[in-house]
Amino acid sequence: MMKKELPRFLYGGDYNPEQWPEETWSDDIKVFKQADINSATINVFSWALLEPAEGQFNFSKLDKIIKELSNANFDIVLATSTAAMPAWMFKKYPDVARVDYQGRRHVFGARHNFCPSSKNYQRLASDLVRRLVERYADNPHIVVWHVNNEYGGNCYCQECQAEFRKWLKDRYHSLNNLNRAWNMNVWSHTIYNWDEIVVPNELGDAWGPEGTETIVAGLSIDYLRFQSTQMLKLFKMEKQIIEEYDPETPVTTNFHSLPNKMIDYQQWAAAQDIISYDSYPAYDMPKYHPAFLYDLMRSLKHQPFMLMESTPSQVNWQQYSPLKRPRQMRATELQAVAHGADTVQFFQLKQAVGGSEKFHGAVIPHSGRTDTRAYREVERLGHDLKKVGPVIKGSQNPAKVAIVFDWSNFWSFEYVDGITQDFAYLPIILDYYRQFYERNIPTDVIAVDDDFSNYDLVVAPVLYMVKPGLGKKITDYVASGGNFVTSFMSGMVNSTDNVYLGGYPGPLKEVTGVWVEESDAILPEKDVKLQTNDGKHLTGTLVADLIHLEHAEAIAKYDSEFYAGMPAVTENHYHRGKAWYIGSRLDHASLSTIFDQIIGSLKLKPLSAKKTALEITKRVTTDGQKLYFILNMGNDQQPLPNDFKEGYHDLLTGQSPKNVLNPWDVELLTH
Amino acid sequence: MMKKELPRFLYGGDYNPEQWPEETWSDDIKVFKQADINSATINVFSWALLEPAEGQFNFSKLDKIIKELSNANFDIVLATSTAAMPAWMFKKYPDVARVDYQGRRHVFGARHNFCPSSKNYQRLASDLVRRLVERYADNPHIVVWHVNNEYGGNCYCQECQAEFRKWLKDRYHSLNNLNRAWNMNVWSHTIYNWDEIVVPNELGDAWGPEGTETIVAGLSIDYLRFQSTQMLKLFKMEKQIIEEYDPETPVTTNFHSLPNKMIDYQQWAAAQDIISYDSYPAYDMPKYHPAFLYDLMRSLKHQPFMLMESTPSQVNWQQYSPLKRPRQMRATELQAVAHGADTVQFFQLKQAVGGSEKFHGAVIPHSGRTDTRAYREVERLGHDLKKVGPVIKGSQNPAKVAIVFDWSNFWSFEYVDGITQDFAYLPIILDYYRQFYERNIPTDVIAVDDDFSNYDLVVAPVLYMVKPGLGKKITDYVASGGNFVTSFMSGMVNSTDNVYLGGYPGPLKEVTGVWVEESDAILPEKDVKLQTNDGKHLTGTLVADLIHLEHAEAIAKYDSEFYAGMPAVTENHYHRGKAWYIGSRLDHASLSTIFDQIIGSLKLKPLSAKKTALEITKRVTTDGQKLYFILNMGNDQQPLPNDFKEGYHDLLTGQSPKNVLNPWDVELLTH
Amino acid sequence: MMKKELPRFLYGGDYNPEQWPEETWSDDIKVFKQADINSATINVFSWALLEPAEGQFNFSKLDKIIKELSNANFDIVLATSTAAMPAWMFKKYPDVARVDYQGRRHVFGARHNFCPSSKNYQRLASDLVRRLVERYADNPHIVVWHVNNEYGGNCYCQECQAEFRKWLKDRYHSLNNLNRAWNMNVWSHTIYNWDEIVVPNELGDAWGPEGTETIVAGLSIDYLRFQSTQMLKLFKMEKQIIEEYDPETPVTTNFHSLPNKMIDYQQWAAAQDIISYDSYPAYDMPKYHPAFLYDLMRSLKHQPFMLMESTPSQVNWQQYSPLKRPRQMRATELQAVAHGADTVQFFQLKQAVGGSEKFHGAVIPHSGRTDTRAYREVERLGHDLKKVGPVIKGSQNPAKVAIVFDWSNFWSFEYVDGITQDFAYLPIILDYYRQFYERNIPTDVIAVDDDFSNYDLVVAPVLYMVKPGLGKKITDYVASGGNFVTSFMSGMVNSTDNVYLGGYPGPLKEVTGVWVEESDAILPEKDVKLQTNDGKHLTGTLVADLIHLEHAEAIAKYDSEFYAGMPAVTENHYHRGKAWYIGSRLDHASLSTIFDQIIGSLKLKPLSAKKTALEITKRVTTDGQKLYFILNMGNDQQPLPNDFKEGYHDLLTGQSPKNVLNPWDVELLTH
Repeated sequence: MMKKELPRFLYGGDYNPEQWPEETWSDDIKVFKQADINSATINVFSWALLEPAEGQFNFSKLDKIIKELSNANFDIVLATSTAAMPAWMFKKYPDVARVDYQGRRHVFGARHNFCPSSKNYQRLASDLVRRLVERYADNPHIVVWHVNNEYGGNCYCQECQAEFRKWLKDRYHSLNNLNRAWNMNVWSHTIYNWDEIVVPNELGDAWGPEGTETIVAGLSIDYLRFQSTQMLKLFKMEKQIIEEYDPETPVTTNFHSLPNKMIDYQQWAAAQDIISYDSYPAYDMPKYHPAFLYDLMRSLKHQPFMLMESTPSQVNWQQYSPLKRPRQMRATELQAVAHGADTVQFFQLKQAVGGSEKFHGAVIPHSGRTDTRAYREVERLGHDLKKVGPVIKGSQNPAKVAIVFDWSNFWSFEYVDGITQDFAYLPIILDYYRQFYERNIPTDVIAVDDDFSNYDLVVAPVLYMVKPGLGKKITDYVASGGNFVTSFMSGMVNSTDNVYLGGYPGPLKEVTGVWVEESDAILPEKDVKLQTNDGKHLTGTLVADLIHLEHAEAIAKYDSEFYAGMPAVTENHYHRGKAWYIGSRLDHASLSTIFDQIIGSLKLKPLSAKKTALEITKRVTTDGQKLYFILNMGNDQQPLPNDFKEGYHDLLTGQSPKNVLNPWDVELLTH
Repeated sequence: MMKKELPRFLYGGDYNPEQWPEETWSDDIKVFKQADINSATINVFSWALLEPAEGQFNFSKLDKIIKELSNANFDIVLATSTAAMPAWMFKKYPDVARVDYQGRRHVFGARHNFCPSSKNYQRLASDLVRRLVERYADNPHIVVWHVNNEYGGNCYCQECQAEFRKWLKDRYHSLNNLNRAWNMNVWSHTIYNWDEIVVPNELGDAWGPEGTETIVAGLSIDYLRFQSTQMLKLFKMEKQIIEEYDPETPVTTNFHSLPNKMIDYQQWAAAQDIISYDSYPAYDMPKYHPAFLYDLMRSLKHQPFMLMESTPSQVNWQQYSPLKRPRQMRATELQAVAHGADTVQFFQLKQAVGGSEKFHGAVIPHSGRTDTRAYREVERLGHDLKKVGPVIKGSQNPAKVAIVFDWSNFWSFEYVDGITQDFAYLPIILDYYRQFYERNIPTDVIAVDDDFSNYDLVVAPVLYMVKPGLGKKITDYVASGGNFVTSFMSGMVNSTDNVYLGGYPGPLKEVTGVWVEESDAILPEKDVKLQTNDGKHLTGTLVADLIHLEHAEAIAKYDSEFYAGMPAVTENHYHRGKAWYIGSRLDHASLSTIFDQIIGSLKLKPLSAKKTALEITKRVTTDGQKLYFILNMGNDQQPLPNDFKEGYHDLLTGQSPKNVLNPWDVELLTH
Repeated sequence: MMKKELPRFLYGGDYNPEQWPEETWSDDIKVFKQADINSATINVFSWALLEPAEGQFNFSKLDKIIKELSNANFDIVLATSTAAMPAWMFKKYPDVARVDYQGRRHVFGARHNFCPSSKNYQRLASDLVRRLVERYADNPHIVVWHVNNEYGGNCYCQECQAEFRKWLKDRYHSLNNLNRAWNMNVWSHTIYNWDEIVVPNELGDAWGPEGTETIVAGLSIDYLRFQSTQMLKLFKMEKQIIEEYDPETPVTTNFHSLPNKMIDYQQWAAAQDIISYDSYPAYDMPKYHPAFLYDLMRSLKHQPFMLMESTPSQVNWQQYSPLKRPRQMRATELQAVAHGADTVQFFQLKQAVGGSEKFHGAVIPHSGRTDTRAYREVERLGHDLKKVGPVIKGSQNPAKVAIVFDWSNFWSFEYVDGITQDFAYLPIILDYYRQFYERNIPTDVIAVDDDFSNYDLVVAPVLYMVKPGLGKKITDYVASGGNFVTSFMSGMVNSTDNVYLGGYPGPLKEVTGVWVEESDAILPEKDVKLQTNDGKHLTGTLVADLIHLEHAEAIAKYDSEFYAGMPAVTENHYHRGKAWYIGSRLDHASLSTIFDQIIGSLKLKPLSAKKTALEITKRVTTDGQKLYFILNMGNDQQPLPNDFKEGYHDLLTGQSPKNVLNPWDVELLTH
């Protein structure tokens, strides 16, 4: 059955009235309304209140909260409360708690610490959700069901081990297949009985910090796949119960982190009715990093998403949380909207008096006052969104360029025992994303399973793990006229981390037209020099591939080390398309030089004809209206590009655009 | 019953004759006497010798030792030997060993590793102490009972958990109260049964290195309170047995560290007949840090204390132990005396041949020789103390300024998940202490429960946790004419870490006359500029409070960032007194500028009219004689201040003071 | 019975055909033969294949492999496969797995993780080895038995604890002796029952990272001795079985690391028929470090050794693995030969497709191609060795200088709680080794039990632990005309870490003629100045000994700090020999100044009259032919020393030597 749309552009966030005297609630709502807040996310952590003892439910407080918010005509995002288990549950059923990577069973405390394989957890969570949904499904103010909270982390208990063995049996059918897939002949690891398989924790085949070092990568990666799947089952379990009672209201769980490594969000996307994301960029994060995350979230379903959490001012759990500067909050929230968010939601609407997040920013602070800088900025944004939200909501972000981001590569590339210890997936992906961000070329961030034919250019750096069929898919895409960029450490292994024989980059050899004989590790304090055919000097780090041209041409060669003169960056005309191979980690200026050439040859159109330090994105409404978000995310004034000087007006002000944007200025232009 | 005074100024230290052939003892004593050593601390770690098997006691060796020392007319500090348990005890009663923060039961090894809740430990320790005291109580040479040794560290075992639940029941009476105190509504932590409470270790609600990170700060802080109390019970258990047999000889346990975080020495002070302290300043510690520690120790009971341990030369367990330079040892020992010590005691009188402290300095070194630099310095100090000890002993250190140091703040401020990860309590307290140290203004270091009315000025930086009544106490103190200085991160939470609503600094808002709307985190490599009303430029780090004046006036404002022009340091005339609020962590020069103003306005009198790099303290004997300790703790010659040029003589030399003090020179002047 | 010699100079390495289809084997061998590879090490990790279930053996695959290699006339190094246990074994007998330093029993995974005390492991390994040897003992192509693999690491389980107690009983006979040896009187550690002894892990008397911090050093060092011995028993168990069936073929296990700290290779040497070593110098290791290791390996039995493993190109498990530069591999392999290797063996002959070492270099790479730089270099070296191997094989490396390297010092010096935390054994040994390396003076690296009388000079820096008799042995050696150099932190403790009383350097006091009163710790960023008698300025770090001359003369004195003018480096004429004491860690230039003097006075002859940056070593064949290895291990051209310009020819080229050596050039000169 089709799910309902969000009824309006939501402005609101997490609200925990159960932590406060009931008599304060109506004042809270008055303050929210004053800022045009129209929505609240509730019941995220209330299991202990709702079920003080097994099977004894008490919804009286929640009834009142929902009634209060409904009466105020708030849109409610109703969470299921299954993310933090009550103390009594740990005591009665110790198996609900995870066993950690060190092999230790945890006890009551913290949150997000349920074992995904615990039958007790599954039963108790199902019971709670059924009661909850049964009770509130008919409330028309509930516009989204919010399952659990920020799934993540792994369990290494005996129950998970048993489930993992079953999962492997389903996947590999025979031990022969398993042994081959994991190449268990090495180091005498052959398994002769499913029961001999042990989870990869510190006491077994993995070591070092969790998720970073392993002996049998196939085992470790499969375990991450299994855990991601096992968690997804929990989500689906709750979703299915919800849909029994309410098949129409969209169901989501909030994604998080930068992004979260342990959950394969591309695997999870199909099960989400709408993607929702908690956005907490750190103070020192370059501005393209959150843009990348929003593009990733939007691309998961190729639809607008919910900005489920964000902070109205500071957070309290990062290393350092300087104040957001005046007007910075508005700009950063609108950046999410520019990239596809159809909601702006805060954690939290009212600041808690205790707990580990008590110094996390909120709409109503500890002082209770509204004559604060933070509140006034929330208020201003509320007024803005009230005006422009209805226009924005549901609009799309069309893109002809795609960056490939893949969780199997995230895992395997960081597990690899390679020629340098400095392999990290995200920074290299961001190198390439930044090329399009700074040119204001709209970009999707897609999965290897996405349809490439929608794009003029597909960029897949460090595509280390190439699953069966993917090499052919890329080759066919280029043959049919697509354009493809890849890099060092690509095309190397299959989905269980076994190397493709016959020369790197394995299944990408044909399309890239190169053979990489060997790779040099560049020491952290060193670099390697390159030169383009037209004499530009480039600099590489991390690794340097020693490339032989098979069909490709070199567009840059090494200019230092004993391999000076060997190809370093190559271009291959392959049937109707082209493929580039970039053999080293180029610094930003160098990579820009290469992409000037690539993008120039493709005639990809930036949203501003001339380069600008402003961030420009485009959303297109269902009736075709083009909305241009012009953001000054830097510290200096920037002139409005000429493209927008004539015939545009700013939906936020209703006036002509200003010719100069101050730091944190935002214009929302349309014809 | 009144306890006896120390019979004389003690000069001695830890002596372990049981590690040596008996025939060597008399030679040892000869060497000690040659240096005017008059005292020995014995029996600190002899449980395994005294009780080779449960219930089988053997005091023959100790009898001989005590006899030897008594015959030599040594004053004996007799330890109870309960700090290191014999191997057989771990084997027979594994519960005597602690369970660590990681949840692991320890085994035989190390020391100071008894579980404070172990009934077996309590019974066995009591038995030992009873036998010991029964046997030696009548020996008139025993001048102090030394209970256990350097209490510290925590246990996380099931027995402690059970005792903790009882302790909580006594404290909170109902689970309702407990849940409210710990704000357990957050993250669904509500407890419905006392048995659901679990100790805060790495497997539960705390994480990170012990004592540094927690989710429920109320729980974690209460656990530290409980552990401190539980250890104190052990001390009292031994003390009570001692007093059954010997109600007159003072009982103490030796405090330690810089200071030790895990034991609330202010809570423990009342139970000590005399404070004793083990002093091991690291080679790179600024000279005011040990001064602070001595002032803290003296202020615990507002009485002279014992310098129970210190090293005659190097230690062996710090990162680096350069040699104490010639004459440095004498100066550092006399620094302790200057601040209130009535003993000078070393660890150790004779250097052990094995064990982890075998390279720790000693009076008799491995060479057995006395023609060593270290021995000659011990000897010289012995002669000095023989001369001046009788005059010094029992004299007081009067002070009109008090720095507040509070263990609840120590714990809670370092647990806080705040806007920066760099919150550390002691360094900030030392910032403020140093202001008085460098001006040679005598300072007490007091508890929040001390009587403030004794002081002209009370300084309480980062008074983050303000327990019930403390806000009023401070306000009343100022109203009655007291003067009070506080800082950023003050007045924020109650004793279980719940925020005071209505605006920071909560219960200090009235007296300081300010409202802090928000606080900026200053990045480690950055700073914030300030300017005083008279145009002086100051620099702040760590945080910058954005202050609104409610009744106060600004005496410095910010001079950078978007809050330039907002108040940064304020002064509030409140009834008959004044209160200052300092909104950032000022560097030393900047804080000095502010304190020049504060101290100037109060007419507090330094011991030297003109500023000097010499350290000057004053002790006053019971008959009113003023003893001035003039110490050159730096590397350069310093002139004697004019104040002391006329009419003073040096008790150490019996002559007029020298006009110039060389490094490590000490003069003890009196009229 | 006399063991057979190696039949020829082996060139080959680890080969795992069982990981590949059988039809590929013959092609592999063709490729190997093309490079003159004549040997393969097989069956290192095949237990799971050979014994898929307990008692069910399957040698069919190994039969084929051995047949294939035998038919190709390969010399086979046959491993016993006991280093990696099959999964079923962990499941059936959990006690085969180690308990780690944290007290946790490990599970299936990794390798080299057998408990040395496990009866099950011992029985199962014995069974396997017996079947294996029984089957293949008669094959004449097997030239070496390779037991297990890279023994190392410790176990802390209950079974090891029980065995440790027995080992202690054998060593100390009575608890009295034990308590005295470990000085257990300190901290009440006296043991009254053997069962009270617990292994020194993190839960007991040791702490910090494994092998670095302990309270009772005697216990911890004895535990390392016990574990080394316990592992050696496993080796001997296998060796004994092998010799039952094949008493003639040499048996070895491959030593490793830089060197491995946990196995006392000097203790193990006697049980090896030939020493074999796995050499993996890191990219940033100074060239004298591998030379040191080869000299150590050769000196273990004073015989040529096997270079059992090395990489033909990169490794994959170091932090960074830059490519070996063109011709670098050949030079580094020949460096091993120059220092005494009689084989050149690689890990691995064919690159694995999966597993944690899949990116480790190999002769046949993933591409399967032989037109690679790496293969061509392997081929060239093969041709070289075919030519010169027969001449080299069996030749000796005579030396008149010995550096003492001692595992008990390795352990105890790094355990010591001393005046600085920066004590590390190997770097200081290397300081001294480098003095001879850079002068091209052949050097043995010997054990304290070696015969000193073979040497003109014995150098024993940081000889902290001096076992009974060693002091006298050194004194007698010098008295008889030997020359001896030692340093700070020498002569301090006996074999259970108890200090020698009477003044440092204890049993070396007589021969060195000095008394060290105390030692200053030099801070990491600081140094101490020295001056030689003839006015040269030297620099010391780490520690500075304050030395008194008893019979010695100063050859350098301190020139800074309060001990300026005190002796820092001394020389003592003792009967017919001399002894030097060096009181600080001198930097390279300073130590060179001192050794110029020492070596000058001894008339030790370098292999090149003039100093050169080339590495020159000499091997002498059984019939007295002198082979000079001239290696350019640096980055610059170097002229051939005059010594070799006349009358020499290069065995590698058959021609006169070149007058200038390029980087990585090697000449093998003879008259």
